[in-house]
Amino acid sequence: MKKGNTIFFKNPPRILSHAAICGSKETEGILGKYADVTLEDDMYGESTYEKAECKMLSAAISLAIKKSRLGESGIDVLLSGDLLNQIISASFAARDFTFPFLGLYSACSTMSESILLGSALVDGGYVKTAVCATGSHFASAERQYRYPLELGCTRPPQAQWTVTGAGGLVLGSGQKGVKVVNGTMGTVCDYGVTDVNNMGAAMAPAAAKTIVSHFVDTGTAPEDYDLILTGDLGALGSRILKDLTWEKGYDVSSRHVDCGEIVYKVIESEFQGGSGAGCSATVLNAYVLTKMDAGLYKRVLFAATGALLSTVSSGQGESIPCISHAVQLEV
Amino acid sequence: MKKGNTIFFKNPPRILSHAAICGSKETEGILGKYADVTLEDDMYGESTYEKAECKMLSAAISLAIKKSRLGESGIDVLLSGDLLNQIISASFAARDFTFPFLGLYSACSTMSESILLGSALVDGGYVKTAVCATGSHFASAERQYRYPLELGCTRPPQAQWTVTGAGGLVLGSGQKGVKVVNGTMGTVCDYGVTDVNNMGAAMAPAAAKTIVSHFVDTGTAPEDYDLILTGDLGALGSRILKDLTWEKGYDVSSRHVDCGEIVYKVIESEFQGGSGAGCSATVLNAYVLTKMDAGLYKRVLFAATGALLSTVSSGQGESIPCISHAVQLEV
Repeated sequence: MKKGNTIFFKNPPRILSHAAICGSKETEGILGKYADVTLEDDMYGESTYEKAECKMLSAAISLAIKKSRLGESGIDVLLSGDLLNQIISASFAARDFTFPFLGLYSACSTMSESILLGSALVDGGYVKTAVCATGSHFASAERQYRYPLELGCTRPPQAQWTVTGAGGLVLGSGQKGVKVVNGTMGTVCDYGVTDVNNMGAAMAPAAAKTIVSHFVDTGTAPEDYDLILTGDLGALGSRILKDLTWEKGYDVSSRHVDCGEIVYKVIESEFQGGSGAGCSATVLNAYVLTKMDAGLYKRVLFAATGALLSTVSSGQGESIPCISHAVQLEV
Repeated sequence: MKKGNTIFFKNPPRILSHAAICGSKETEGILGKYADVTLEDDMYGESTYEKAECKMLSAAISLAIKKSRLGESGIDVLLSGDLLNQIISASFAARDFTFPFLGLYSACSTMSESILLGSALVDGGYVKTAVCATGSHFASAERQYRYPLELGCTRPPQAQWTVTGAGGLVLGSGQKGVKVVNGTMGTVCDYGVTDVNNMGAAMAPAAAKTIVSHFVDTGTAPEDYDLILTGDLGALGSRILKDLTWEKGYDVSSRHVDCGEIVYKVIESEFQGGSGAGCSATVLNAYVLTKMDAGLYKRVLFAATGALLSTVSSGQGESIPCISHAVQLEV
């Protein structure tokens, strides 16, 4: 069933298991305690950043499957994507497994898009189980989107730090696990922001639009959630989100938490906080879902946000279209 | 319902309308007669190849919606992707519309992935209508994946020519239109091909695997289809496909047609034929679906194929993982 932009699941799929892996810098923050694997070396034994990113994603998928106790043969499909050109991390990680692969691209909102689509496939009875996963790596993102690390460019104060990490979860049915109750599909929002270092400001309108759509479609209000979790708006973007939702009559300030804002211990060199597809993926799969499993959060709105730019579009003077897909999670 | 890697639709969604647009070179071939819009100038009035590609995709989406007579408000979601880094053509095209957008990446098999996922969303009752679309542009693909056009590099004999064009269709329910009966999800296949100019050889094993899976899962044989349509294997890849399926006990030779092989009038400078996400998208939406609407083809297996490489993965010595998703279309 659909109302507005929100699709509702008749038999809400369950998150049977979840896993996350993170880099050394991330280990110093909340992920250090909650991630299944914490790396001392961000190269993860590989020869390139991109291969390390792919290996992390593959490891997160394997770990989630292992924790679900289903085995590889118990998985029906993988829905995954990442930030690298032609989503090579996801495609090459999928090569490690025998089940089908559906490639997605929604920048840093890939985690919520994959849960939304995966839940529709499970609830619709098309598959019994689905793995949803994504990740990112600071060094591969930096050299693809911005400058070679060796150049030592100064980071502007509105910049964010791409999280080195990956997270994955297994969707299925049963009596246990967090439920995916519904999902709100995002529309593309473009407020004309052209500063590629200011993703928070670019993405906040998309997050606000999806979150407000979600409230309207489901008849809920911010108080109905223990947590309204955005992906990687950072400190500045989070402030803009609060303003934009306030203008629409919703005060999310007491419930809103941004994964980018909480992922690092001290926001200093990272300025506005974390970003990247791995940001919301690790915080959700390591921290939030663990807290939900323990009953500490009962109802969470997970609205990851994605900036749909490329270096080519920016180079050609285009502004940054953004999107946010949301899923409602309940114990 | 799922059997093997194939998902079956209870109430097969209908293709309510379909549209395609193609470039000047493509107009000389079969698309000239069947495409809704044929361009004289491949720049399409834009200042860059990438913007022209985006405009074509947006036009194909608009045309398909117009032909469906549903209007923009009658569309529930767009599923789209393309070959450019961070699928900017699809993301920027989605900016032109008010309905939600789910970004996909499956290289040149994006058309069949989008139909498969869109059909699941429609059949599952999550949306009433979905637009599935993709496209490509020779010049943007060439400079992103290979060399700047200005360099005038010699093309090796195993090379293919990226199709300049875009195609889209509207899925929904009703009594009219071609039915999407089922869809076979692809798994990633990597036979170790590293030659980025030899996509046909790289992709043929993925196509063979999905097509054979489809036969097994559905209990059908090549003779049950009027057409077994692959995306862009080209002349060489098509020969390999026939060999590989023959080895598994299926003789597809009398039914198999490759979009890349038929899209151009004379295969000369294009060597092995057409390629790109726009290749299968235009041939399906302009030619094949028009023939199906006229009852000339009753049952078609559409198995688009994608090479999941990037310039970075190739530069780092990786081979080319490939995938093929298939959908069974029936009048």
